[in-house]
Amino acid sequence: MNTGALSLIDTALRAGVEVCFANPGTTEMPIVAELDRLPGMRVVLGLFEGVCTGAADGWARMTRHPAATLLHLGPGFANGIANLHNARRARSPVVNWIGDHPSRHLPFDAPLTSDIAALTGSVGWTRTVKSAKEMAEASLASVEAALGPPGRVASLIIPADCQWEPGPEPLSEKTSPALRETPTGATREAARLLRKGRAGILLGGNALTSRGLRAAARVAVATGCGVWVETFPSRQECGRHLPRFPALPYFPEQARETLAKVTSLVLAGAREPVAFFAYPDQPSQLAPDGATLYSLADPDKGVDAEVALEALAEELDAPAAATPPRNMPAFVPSGQPLDPDNLGRALAAVTPENAIVVNEATTTGFMWNAVHASNAAPHTMFFSTGGAIGQGLPNALGAALACPDRRVIAFQADGSGLYTVQALWSMARENADVTVVVCANRRYRILQVELARAGIAHPGPKAQALTDLTRPVIDWAALAKGFGVPACSVRTDGELADALIRAFAERGPSLIEALLD
Amino acid sequence: MNTGALSLIDTALRAGVEVCFANPGTTEMPIVAELDRLPGMRVVLGLFEGVCTGAADGWARMTRHPAATLLHLGPGFANGIANLHNARRARSPVVNWIGDHPSRHLPFDAPLTSDIAALTGSVGWTRTVKSAKEMAEASLASVEAALGPPGRVASLIIPADCQWEPGPEPLSEKTSPALRETPTGATREAARLLRKGRAGILLGGNALTSRGLRAAARVAVATGCGVWVETFPSRQECGRHLPRFPALPYFPEQARETLAKVTSLVLAGAREPVAFFAYPDQPSQLAPDGATLYSLADPDKGVDAEVALEALAEELDAPAAATPPRNMPAFVPSGQPLDPDNLGRALAAVTPENAIVVNEATTTGFMWNAVHASNAAPHTMFFSTGGAIGQGLPNALGAALACPDRRVIAFQADGSGLYTVQALWSMARENADVTVVVCANRRYRILQVELARAGIAHPGPKAQALTDLTRPVIDWAALAKGFGVPACSVRTDGELADALIRAFAERGPSLIEALLD
Repeated sequence: MNTGALSLIDTALRAGVEVCFANPGTTEMPIVAELDRLPGMRVVLGLFEGVCTGAADGWARMTRHPAATLLHLGPGFANGIANLHNARRARSPVVNWIGDHPSRHLPFDAPLTSDIAALTGSVGWTRTVKSAKEMAEASLASVEAALGPPGRVASLIIPADCQWEPGPEPLSEKTSPALRETPTGATREAARLLRKGRAGILLGGNALTSRGLRAAARVAVATGCGVWVETFPSRQECGRHLPRFPALPYFPEQARETLAKVTSLVLAGAREPVAFFAYPDQPSQLAPDGATLYSLADPDKGVDAEVALEALAEELDAPAAATPPRNMPAFVPSGQPLDPDNLGRALAAVTPENAIVVNEATTTGFMWNAVHASNAAPHTMFFSTGGAIGQGLPNALGAALACPDRRVIAFQADGSGLYTVQALWSMARENADVTVVVCANRRYRILQVELARAGIAHPGPKAQALTDLTRPVIDWAALAKGFGVPACSVRTDGELADALIRAFAERGPSLIEALLD
Repeated sequence: MNTGALSLIDTALRAGVEVCFANPGTTEMPIVAELDRLPGMRVVLGLFEGVCTGAADGWARMTRHPAATLLHLGPGFANGIANLHNARRARSPVVNWIGDHPSRHLPFDAPLTSDIAALTGSVGWTRTVKSAKEMAEASLASVEAALGPPGRVASLIIPADCQWEPGPEPLSEKTSPALRETPTGATREAARLLRKGRAGILLGGNALTSRGLRAAARVAVATGCGVWVETFPSRQECGRHLPRFPALPYFPEQARETLAKVTSLVLAGAREPVAFFAYPDQPSQLAPDGATLYSLADPDKGVDAEVALEALAEELDAPAAATPPRNMPAFVPSGQPLDPDNLGRALAAVTPENAIVVNEATTTGFMWNAVHASNAAPHTMFFSTGGAIGQGLPNALGAALACPDRRVIAFQADGSGLYTVQALWSMARENADVTVVVCANRRYRILQVELARAGIAHPGPKAQALTDLTRPVIDWAALAKGFGVPACSVRTDGELADALIRAFAERGPSLIEALLD
């Protein structure tokens, strides 16, 4: 007999959902019971729901296809929201399966009853299944909703009785919807604006593939326009083989200064640039007042920015690109205590070709992005697109499972790493090839900067305590050991490079605590 | 100059909010900057938002007064929802302060923008501040909303500009609203039902104080009625000095059997008993069909169940209670490997008088509650009232700060402890007198039981993996060390008792990993 649960899983599997990141409870047991009947569906346990949702996001960034999560009622889903917020901003396709009480049980307001749809609705597409008969169709609808384009977070709320009652035959439909193309007229208009001079292009989304970046370089050569990359892209190809474009600065006054002379800004896979946070006496918009903003490829409409940039280069008769590979600056360990600069240099020197660098290193990561990433071997970088903390370790887990032939480097700030530190255990269980580099500056540095920006030159002891991660010191090597991941601590750039080389030579996860001065 | 932030904090302080459990970000910096100006407000940093919300709940359960939390935008609040769900079910007063972008910045849909009110509304009272001028009045309104009665979760969404702009003078109002009294007619009706025979009382809420329990014993002697305690009370006085009443069983078929012969059930501080989860062919309601349910003291209306039970005892001319203190069964260590029974016996033997036992030990905790708690020295027990996982360690932190003269025992399952394990660090930082006892059975035992109940006699490898916490084993002593808490592991009841005695003799936190066979 097919249960509704089996209809759900089998339909998702046939639609290309190959993995389920799970932290289930009683209302999901009928789904748990059926997972073993479908050999193709990989199941990964997370000890905390944010691990599951962040891993699904990491999986999607590499495969462009959704993973499923399996989460327990409203509170379980709530624990996954922060990383789903990031997935939403990254336009990552994710399918969430959330169990609920049978509808006959809801009026009794049992202890775990809550308004799940209010939570799921806050991060994307939502549907509550009404009957087991819907389970195949609803499963397919959720995968299609997730795929878009653009990709999105799609949540199915599934009462337990719809799981355990007889369900329909699974549907067999594999959808991989194509991105939309920019119309020719839009390409011409972008070319016209760029030819006028004092123009720029802001790259984002899938403009940041190797093809997209090379096409942008051709456009820049043909028109002399400036080219910038959105501040926190979901995924960007990086390395010394590619043209190097600066990221738009994080702080709004710096970003406005960067764009100050631009009279036209063409958006290719990026949204209009706006301040991450608002400050007194600062505008929200980062382009100069009166500048023309022109969307060549709107990522929110699922338009293909890579193809659009190539068409634009053709429209401009741009010469074929030639980006001579940059030489890697020689790395000679200084033996000095680590700082964001020599840390980045050491990492760039040894990053293996084809690595995936999941960058949640916050203040340390800014320098990597600005300087070192473009000197490293060819690699793929993720950023925290939505600004919700705790993306890095789960993202790294998901990327590693999606790409078992690639080394993943979780380039991680210590403060943000603690929100979803339980991801280490799943890395150990799955023997995921993740090298975690914890940039242990033992403070919320970014908040210290923000306090100073708010005019607090000398924070009092309470304000200081809220940005301080000593008292007690957090021992990352012990935390890693607790979750079954081998670990070490390093204090100099030479020690870091050696530890990285050792880690890359082994299969499975390990953690390096890089103690910053 | 008063900023809006200062108006907010000062008004809350004057209304009796003495502590703020905080995990702030940029949109809360103006509040952070003002905290040092108010010496009376204690500030405690949590490394994860669920630590803050669970600590606020623990604080409220002991003080009956709200703590504040300070959380960062929608994703930060989302991380705190699971423990706010539990606080809501416990009717704990909690005030949440959540920063938001200034309203002028919201239309630009910056990366961290989300529908915060959808999230806050799912757990209780919500208000979005519109202007800095409102900051004192809104602050007081949120404290009043939290206090009820009944207590509730109250969330203020506070745009950053309302924090940094000039605010009004603080309001000075300290509210401690009284619980409502049961009308005399209701007391008479309850007495009439109980005198008829085949009757029972279900105790919950503040019926579970020493006074309430003693009054219930008098009623039982006078009428011969059965007395039960709701399955997961928020707070219950326990120990060998008090009358002992069984908890209503967790599984619905057992609960229905318990109540099978009852024709009238008087509810004192408890809601109508309903199944925690629904199962095929099982009704949601636990009282027999046709039984009369009579609410003597409705906790959702803030009615005082303790006073109601005393009035009921008087109405019944019940004799004065005499509960002879039970003798503690002699504890002789068996030297055997730990199981839920000998673990509970060892813990009961050494629990210090006036301890607070935060019970999130799940399957191990059931036996404590059914057998051992009533043999221990007088103590207060908390349960996870809402069923959301990860309450225990944060609750213990909050209770310890609320009651610095009492020993807190975090009686903790290993699976659930991992959701908010970051609480250990705040315990270390605050030198909280918490002794954590991790019941390490290395599995989600409750889910194994639920799988069996769902008819899965032989789960496949994937279903098994979803309930298994080996591969790799989690090393709790290492995790504790990582967060700065001294720890040890024990394997026998004698080792456990010795470790507990050592821990109780020291100030500050420690963790004992009790390895269950």
